Amino acid sequence: MKPSIEHIYRRRIHFSETDAAGVAHFTALASLVEEAEHDFFFAKGVAPFAADSGWPRVAFSVQYEAPCFFGEEVAVSLTDFSVAKSSVSYSFRAEKEKAGETVTVFRGAMTICHVRRNPEAGAGAFSPEPISDVVRGALFGLRGCSQI
Amino acid sequence: MKPSIEHIYRRRIHFSETDAAGVAHFTALASLVEEAEHDFFFAKGVAPFAADSGWPRVAFSVQYEAPCFFGEEVAVSLTDFSVAKSSVSYSFRAEKEKAGETVTVFRGAMTICHVRRNPEAGAGAFSPEPISDVVRGALFGLRGCSQI
Amino acid sequence: MKPSIEHIYRRRIHFSETDAAGVAHFTALASLVEEAEHDFFFAKGVAPFAADSGWPRVAFSVQYEAPCFFGEEVAVSLTDFSVAKSSVSYSFRAEKEKAGETVTVFRGAMTICHVRRNPEAGAGAFSPEPISDVVRGALFGLRGCSQI
Amino acid sequence: MKPSIEHIYRRRIHFSETDAAGVAHFTALASLVEEAEHDFFFAKGVAPFAADSGWPRVAFSVQYEAPCFFGEEVAVSLTDFSVAKSSVSYSFRAEKEKAGETVTVFRGAMTICHVRRNPEAGAGAFSPEPISDVVRGALFGLRGCSQI
Repeated sequence: MKPSIEHIYRRRIHFSETDAAGVAHFTALASLVEEAEHDFFFAKGVAPFAADSGWPRVAFSVQYEAPCFFGEEVAVSLTDFSVAKSSVSYSFRAEKEKAGETVTVFRGAMTICHVRRNPEAGAGAFSPEPISDVVRGALFGLRGCSQI
Repeated sequence: MKPSIEHIYRRRIHFSETDAAGVAHFTALASLVEEAEHDFFFAKGVAPFAADSGWPRVAFSVQYEAPCFFGEEVAVSLTDFSVAKSSVSYSFRAEKEKAGETVTVFRGAMTICHVRRNPEAGAGAFSPEPISDVVRGALFGLRGCSQI
Repeated sequence: MKPSIEHIYRRRIHFSETDAAGVAHFTALASLVEEAEHDFFFAKGVAPFAADSGWPRVAFSVQYEAPCFFGEEVAVSLTDFSVAKSSVSYSFRAEKEKAGETVTVFRGAMTICHVRRNPEAGAGAFSPEPISDVVRGALFGLRGCSQI
Repeated sequence: MKPSIEHIYRRRIHFSETDAAGVAHFTALASLVEEAEHDFFFAKGVAPFAADSGWPRVAFSVQYEAPCFFGEEVAVSLTDFSVAKSSVSYSFRAEKEKAGETVTVFRGAMTICHVRRNPEAGAGAFSPEPISDVVRGALFGLRGCSQI
């Protein structure tokens, strides 16, 4: 299922996120993607994390195209959602304004998986769990597709 | 109880820990203190964290005296331990070598508290718990002082 | 000089800032204080950092009073500013709402120092520099007090 | 040029690197890859960063296969190096021991680019620069291939 959704999340780069090269460290930019995703979940009324369930990252790929400096505002947009039985994939693109033009800072793709804590699999273990119809509907406006 | 213990932990500053000023960010240096403490716990055979118990920070004070750069090795020494019923305080000092001399990077004091998960106090809540004689003995070589 | 200023900065705790105890890590909360300070600088039109100057931390002390969880909004207020020749001190307090009540998450004091890059003192070195009247006026509404 | 090199870097997961799901956060694991790379540079006597040059990340892709907990030791191996005019690509794999077996925690590929600060391109800007024969030789044992 490929719902037509775009979610945009904006915030400034913090000083703690920069590195000695003077730019936002690549892991701080990676964290922005997760933040944008959580912001999307919150906006849809779905908790992205609970004591016994969550959405760990399965795959992440990113291309860094322009540096981003302390204090600059970045807009991370999530698009091209693809929803499977227990997992969700999407594309992301982060942009900033520079001299009146929009510059792509980084872009890539993320896959996350819905999991539930599974004590039988060991301490701290989680196992994949199908995304419920309620969550599927709330996040993506999809109905009756848990059979996918 | 004031056991006479010194624990030293050494490691390099990672690039991700530097900031745009070119030096280790103050929060990365703060994290080094916790790492040194955990290294001490591991050395004594005591787990610093478990699903239902841990040692959160209660108080932390630090003075930053010299910058520390990417790739430099810092030695964090923990001393002046003071052990109370549920809490432990200690002093810390981080040093680096510069042109053949030892330079203090930062120093201060930390207080941590032994806690146990307490579902009755709410989701995610922990409550203070006296440090057991076993842990007291393993960490500090103290005996029979859980009455303190 | 003790200008009567209060600056409040609010934001949610990110997932990347939590730790295995399920709460915001103490270094993430420390970073919030710096963010609040930078937010104050931006609000006053003063750059908190430039290639050749900045405001490193000199001293930081904090007491952690209540845990803070993923997704919770924290309001960090900066008060009790005290302005000296090259340094600024202030108190901070972070609060969150819980069951309709305001809870203090942490509080403490920070001292920062205005510095300028000083190549003569070595690669990457900075030296203290008096806070200019312009910055003093913009940040604190103070006039003619660079003699202090 | 595809030098036959493998570099292995090991360290424990710090508490500050875990998240509320109880496992190392995906950005902390990403940072481990950069650390392993810098460890490789240091081992070869090549500075991974200087005030006027560095090796920013261009592309990064990773698959997360098993969780990693606080205190666990991870071994990150870098292999399949591919050296171009200004850039280097490599594969990475992180493993841990679990119940006597070796488990893959994550694996993927990284591309970095050698750059030099370029004030003409703007404040804080860097531009790609060919990898020198000296660095090419020191890192990869390659000779005379800067024409590539």
